[in-house]
Amino acid sequence: MTTHVSPAWLPDAALAPLGAGTVLLLAPGLDDDPVLDTVVAEVELAASHHGGRSLRAHDPSAPASVVLTTPAGLTDLAGADGAPRAVRVAAERAPELSAEGFHLVRTAGTTVVVARTGAGLLYGLHALLRVGSAPSGEGTLDEVHEPVQPIRMLDHWDNLLPHPVMGQVERGYSGGSLFWSAGRLREDLTRVEGYARLLASTGINRIAVNNVNVHEAEARLLTDGLDDLARLAQVFRRHAIRTHLSVSFAAPMTVGGLSTADPLDAHVQRWWAEAAARVWARIPDFGGFVVKADSEGQPGPFAYGRDHADGANLLARAVAPHGGTVFWRAFVYDHRQDWRDRSTDRARAAHDHFAPLDGRFDDAVVLQVKHGPMDFQVREPVSPVIAALPGTRLAVELQVTQEYTGQQKHVCYLGPLWSQVLRFPLWGEGGATVADVVAGRGPGARPGGVVAVSNAGDDEFWTGHPLAQANLYALGRLAWAPELDPLAVLDEWIRLTFGPDGALAGLLHRVMDGSWRTYEDYTAPLGVGFMVRPGHHYGPDVDGYEYTPWGTYHFADRDGIGVDRTRATGTGYTGQYPAPWRDVYESLETCPDELLLFFHHVPYGHVLSDGTTVVQHVYDTHFRGARAAGELVELWEGARGRVEERTWARVRELLEEQARSAREWRDQLNTYFLRHSGIPDAHGRTIF
Amino acid sequence: MTTHVSPAWLPDAALAPLGAGTVLLLAPGLDDDPVLDTVVAEVELAASHHGGRSLRAHDPSAPASVVLTTPAGLTDLAGADGAPRAVRVAAERAPELSAEGFHLVRTAGTTVVVARTGAGLLYGLHALLRVGSAPSGEGTLDEVHEPVQPIRMLDHWDNLLPHPVMGQVERGYSGGSLFWSAGRLREDLTRVEGYARLLASTGINRIAVNNVNVHEAEARLLTDGLDDLARLAQVFRRHAIRTHLSVSFAAPMTVGGLSTADPLDAHVQRWWAEAAARVWARIPDFGGFVVKADSEGQPGPFAYGRDHADGANLLARAVAPHGGTVFWRAFVYDHRQDWRDRSTDRARAAHDHFAPLDGRFDDAVVLQVKHGPMDFQVREPVSPVIAALPGTRLAVELQVTQEYTGQQKHVCYLGPLWSQVLRFPLWGEGGATVADVVAGRGPGARPGGVVAVSNAGDDEFWTGHPLAQANLYALGRLAWAPELDPLAVLDEWIRLTFGPDGALAGLLHRVMDGSWRTYEDYTAPLGVGFMVRPGHHYGPDVDGYEYTPWGTYHFADRDGIGVDRTRATGTGYTGQYPAPWRDVYESLETCPDELLLFFHHVPYGHVLSDGTTVVQHVYDTHFRGARAAGELVELWEGARGRVEERTWARVRELLEEQARSAREWRDQLNTYFLRHSGIPDAHGRTIF
Repeated sequence: MTTHVSPAWLPDAALAPLGAGTVLLLAPGLDDDPVLDTVVAEVELAASHHGGRSLRAHDPSAPASVVLTTPAGLTDLAGADGAPRAVRVAAERAPELSAEGFHLVRTAGTTVVVARTGAGLLYGLHALLRVGSAPSGEGTLDEVHEPVQPIRMLDHWDNLLPHPVMGQVERGYSGGSLFWSAGRLREDLTRVEGYARLLASTGINRIAVNNVNVHEAEARLLTDGLDDLARLAQVFRRHAIRTHLSVSFAAPMTVGGLSTADPLDAHVQRWWAEAAARVWARIPDFGGFVVKADSEGQPGPFAYGRDHADGANLLARAVAPHGGTVFWRAFVYDHRQDWRDRSTDRARAAHDHFAPLDGRFDDAVVLQVKHGPMDFQVREPVSPVIAALPGTRLAVELQVTQEYTGQQKHVCYLGPLWSQVLRFPLWGEGGATVADVVAGRGPGARPGGVVAVSNAGDDEFWTGHPLAQANLYALGRLAWAPELDPLAVLDEWIRLTFGPDGALAGLLHRVMDGSWRTYEDYTAPLGVGFMVRPGHHYGPDVDGYEYTPWGTYHFADRDGIGVDRTRATGTGYTGQYPAPWRDVYESLETCPDELLLFFHHVPYGHVLSDGTTVVQHVYDTHFRGARAAGELVELWEGARGRVEERTWARVRELLEEQARSAREWRDQLNTYFLRHSGIPDAHGRTIF
Repeated sequence: MTTHVSPAWLPDAALAPLGAGTVLLLAPGLDDDPVLDTVVAEVELAASHHGGRSLRAHDPSAPASVVLTTPAGLTDLAGADGAPRAVRVAAERAPELSAEGFHLVRTAGTTVVVARTGAGLLYGLHALLRVGSAPSGEGTLDEVHEPVQPIRMLDHWDNLLPHPVMGQVERGYSGGSLFWSAGRLREDLTRVEGYARLLASTGINRIAVNNVNVHEAEARLLTDGLDDLARLAQVFRRHAIRTHLSVSFAAPMTVGGLSTADPLDAHVQRWWAEAAARVWARIPDFGGFVVKADSEGQPGPFAYGRDHADGANLLARAVAPHGGTVFWRAFVYDHRQDWRDRSTDRARAAHDHFAPLDGRFDDAVVLQVKHGPMDFQVREPVSPVIAALPGTRLAVELQVTQEYTGQQKHVCYLGPLWSQVLRFPLWGEGGATVADVVAGRGPGARPGGVVAVSNAGDDEFWTGHPLAQANLYALGRLAWAPELDPLAVLDEWIRLTFGPDGALAGLLHRVMDGSWRTYEDYTAPLGVGFMVRPGHHYGPDVDGYEYTPWGTYHFADRDGIGVDRTRATGTGYTGQYPAPWRDVYESLETCPDELLLFFHHVPYGHVLSDGTTVVQHVYDTHFRGARAAGELVELWEGARGRVEERTWARVRELLEEQARSAREWRDQLNTYFLRHSGIPDAHGRTIF
């Protein structure tokens, strides 16, 4: 590992709101709460950098600028001599709080955070850093913060041993694993501690520490790796994060030596029960298991003629007695499809497999559904699976690691994409959103949450591209509060990370705010997806997946392009949506332009809502996107000297690669479309 | 390694012509010839299997059916009592023989082989196996055999350590390396001995034992690996094969610790001289070095502003005092080309680089030129480089390993391709051929030969596909005698390998004789090449290389396809040929159909000489080729029980893969061309 490590969005300067004055931490009853030590450590760290004081008891002679306390502590304080006014305001209101919620009150120069647990206090403390110091001790706040999503989880696709093709971290673009090196847990967990601190500050409360593609070495974690898991769990526990393990459905055979992994086999059931019991005996607050079954070669219940409810419930019954959860991925499709067969539609697969199983999953199962029906493309419709299982706990799976969105070589701030997904009204405007459904809001609904694939590794900037830290930050924030404006979250991140330099903040905002749209501009157009180099998925290859078994086609010919997924003439995928979307997407007239080629096969001359044709749209967006990417390099010159030199240089180097890659995308896409359509650019620009 | 090893074309049964009677071996003066022991061993092995006798002195009471002798031995014998008539015939004619040639005489039931060396005797012995026993002791032969090519060499692209992408053998499809395992020479060289025996039986006389892409471990062979090389050379020496090493041009730096590898630097020159002296001190008959310089990332003289004559002569001056040879590859091109740039033509590169250097290469340099201007495609024109360096020793490089011709999963007998190359009349019909030029025939010409990349590995059949043994066999035979009919060579191989079963021989002939044309039918059409999956090069991907830096494009659009390499309107590549080819290829009227798209960009409706259009030709050949591949599976049923079961089963399994792959090629190519051209198949067959 590098010796220089970026503080990310928690540089010492960001601790000023906490460390500049006197902090009173009064938390009766939380002595056994392991997170309290972290709260204390944060307060002391802040004080050490900013000259403040830290108190553990009310002292009328030392008025606190910040009070961190529990409801019981608040009651005591409110009755004490010289209690600040903010304490009395908080005590009067005394809202109901969940174990993770907090009440933030600021009045007359004092800020009070009230929470029931160490976790709540920690979240409140970081909220305080975000809102900053009250200018001249003024400003008024009275906010109750509760996480919308009970589950706010990161999955790590980290391997114990470097995979010959995928490397140490599958789809990882930030160096090696933070946890594993050469088949073992790292001795030095300093960076894990730092990582846990960063995650907790955004509200992340669960983590899975190994790849969902479970190879031999990882399969043994369940039995031989408990020491390693316990060490990891000990670090994460202090930051209110529960640890999870990805397991192989075939573990009873590969690890346990049984002759079957059939979920209905009593020996298999007993094996899982005993395996779980051993894990929880060692790690009483262990979170549970993540399972990728019957997917891309991973074993699963289909081998035994069982369905995914049988499979998931097998594990659920093993973990439920211990309060554990099984995260069962809905990413099940035929990856050995025949490209000649235009009736099979990979987009349909998850719904076809899982919708009929609604109501059959145990309470300990959370079905983990990718946000789109394909696989984390820059633009996809929201998965209809999320609307189809009202009797099942659901989590929506997002991808922080930029597999298809520039691999942390391109600036691509994903907050707006995730926000769009989370706010998507599954039954039309004004109705329940994706965030609502997975949060378990509403009658009969059951609590799930947000799970995302991490983009962090042992790179000195944690995320390869320094600006990709914003994605990690935004993920946690939007999981906690999906209603937040993703650009406001971006500004939070900029302010915490880079401090109060307003000109720099404006520049960073300009570099990042539209970066997802820019990336979309210069890559696959109009929702068609998958025009990437097979295997590594970086850079353009328009036909790269066109004749493969992966089910990811665009069907371009000399006349047109796109996938007909209508009920009328196509694969019928539109019928998996509830109204109004089943009709909105079905019709060429109402289908949104940005998803046009996802749902329809159209001629190159098809006219979009802005009056341009499909092929002209391709030319326009690719010239525009590549130009915008190129301009970032110049824009970044303005940041020289305003950010740390090594950060500036890394970003500069990557912006140049982004500009080069964007030109390559532009030229390959434009040439491909010109060669196919024969239609020249209306503006006569150079197409090779 | 597997314990079962195929005897290939030297099963015990094939030794009958030698082992059934009495063999007299009389070789005065050859006691120190290390190959003589091999001749003795072959005679004894044959006798042990077939009940014959082996004599080392003339015995009038035991008339020999076979006499192996030297000119001196022949003189002695001819004067002896009871000398067979064939001996007297041979002694009367007494032709001039080179060190490798032999005189084969058969008269009145006795066959006499006369040669000056152990090597000549060994080659004659194998010639005897090929011609078989005289029926009822009759038949008359009087043939002088001399190799046409002085150099008949196999290059092994074997790595010492498995390369993360390329594996143990680069472009190897026959298991691991016969020589190297886990970074070291194998302890047990039994299979190397068997391999050397097979090669010698076809006339191969040189071998390079490591990959031309020289990685760190192989670079050290030059210094730390002399024990290993000496052990290998000891094995090959007994079979009249000289051992060679591929070296890195940067070795003075990477191995020698110098600060430069500049060929004009005196320290560098001394370093190479000393390195060579150490090698030859250890292995006095060492063959020399193979060098891939300034090619696909390998270091070379360009880094120092020197040209390839400077580079090659540097090594030549180090090896010349020891009688060594430097094989300097002409495969130099820009592998970081911009696909947008249609003026740069990779096909031109070798001629552009090397033709101006003619006359500047030392005598110890052999310039090793791939047979086509690109890279071992199923169809290419002959490289114009071979006609362009009359003052330089040349070797034509062929590829036995089927990188682009089915990877030993497809039957593809390459004899006809090589024959076509070797017999190609570089200055028009009746003029000197490729074989002539590289052999050094004709005034002023200088001797080179044939070099080929081996297809052998530690697979039990040596070559993965049992029928791919025919390519290894044919390579040696055509290098010795390029005038041979490649189908007669095929029949030789069939008879030696599978014995006298005429029905089986007919079946094998039918499976193999047209297999190269069939492979061409279902893959890239009309000489256009490179429609393979990038990286591994197996299976179709029409646009796979179209937008890459590799210089291998077809420029297909909705109107047409092909590369304009004319002088009139294209890259001017046709101008690298002497007359008549510069004009034959230049003109659409005279360019052979099978090379049409190599030289011209034409509309899909362009009419070929048989009256079909280009696009209809694609459809027709792809339906025909895939059908032919499919029929092989049925045809092979006829061989069941007639060949060893494990051979039959391996071939069967591979024929099924070939049929599957051929269907995939058919459908992808047809679909691609239909999507682009919009022109339906004239016969209404299914195109997806």
